[in-house]
Amino acid sequence: MVDILHRVAVENHGTDEVYRALTTIEGLRGWWTEDATGDTGPGGEIAFRFPDGGFDMRVLESEPGKRVLWEVVGGTPEWIGTRVHWDLHDDDGWAVLLFKHEGWAEPVEFMHHCSTKWAVFLLSLKALLEQGAGDPAPRDVKNDNW
Amino acid sequence: MVDILHRVAVENHGTDEVYRALTTIEGLRGWWTEDATGDTGPGGEIAFRFPDGGFDMRVLESEPGKRVLWEVVGGTPEWIGTRVHWDLHDDDGWAVLLFKHEGWAEPVEFMHHCSTKWAVFLLSLKALLEQGAGDPAPRDVKNDNW
Repeated sequence: MVDILHRVAVENHGTDEVYRALTTIEGLRGWWTEDATGDTGPGGEIAFRFPDGGFDMRVLESEPGKRVLWEVVGGTPEWIGTRVHWDLHDDDGWAVLLFKHEGWAEPVEFMHHCSTKWAVFLLSLKALLEQGAGDPAPRDVKNDNW
Repeated sequence: MVDILHRVAVENHGTDEVYRALTTIEGLRGWWTEDATGDTGPGGEIAFRFPDGGFDMRVLESEPGKRVLWEVVGGTPEWIGTRVHWDLHDDDGWAVLLFKHEGWAEPVEFMHHCSTKWAVFLLSLKALLEQGAGDPAPRDVKNDNW
């Protein structure tokens, strides 16, 4: 098992504001993909769609200002059954987000891509909060040739 | 042991051009840090400096257009002894770079940060080649509060 890890710090924001960007359809549309629909509450399922596919996430845990946990229940085979952890804490006025996408069976080339791409979207989330606008799909920064 | 993985594809470039950006001081200064000095050849050591510290890399392998391997011989304790792999291949006119920073003892918070930060610098490398200018330190995109 290999994991994708990331960390971003959001200036002059509380963890509750990052939490909202992770747990409301409006928030998710602002940094990951404009085509997000579904139920963001505990037990709910969220459908994220991109020009070339998408993912369905089941919300396993959701603790305001602290953490969110998703399980991938639909999408590309490598993602099915993996889990996406969002852990939040305050660091002297910065909201710090620790990210983990765990449960990859093998470190395939697609996993390398997804690691870079998650960083792109986490920087989009930071920009959404700090600057008022992110770069969600289909306007996302490209790192691939697919 | 846990690894940091990334993938970027550089449009309309050969792997030899990415290789040059990884194996010349001018190239390295164009995307990672403006303060890079040393011997980039096999067996050489390269000193990378940033406003808040730096790293020394020993070049273990260097195969033109194919791969580069560094071992970290100086810098922050978590990095000492870890290895940075740069593997290149062509994919229909795109130069694809597979990156691995392997040998982390534990998935500490600093490792989460470094994963995101490597993505930032790999996108800087892609921009250097595709657009003619990267964002090396100290002009790098910030993801931390340190």
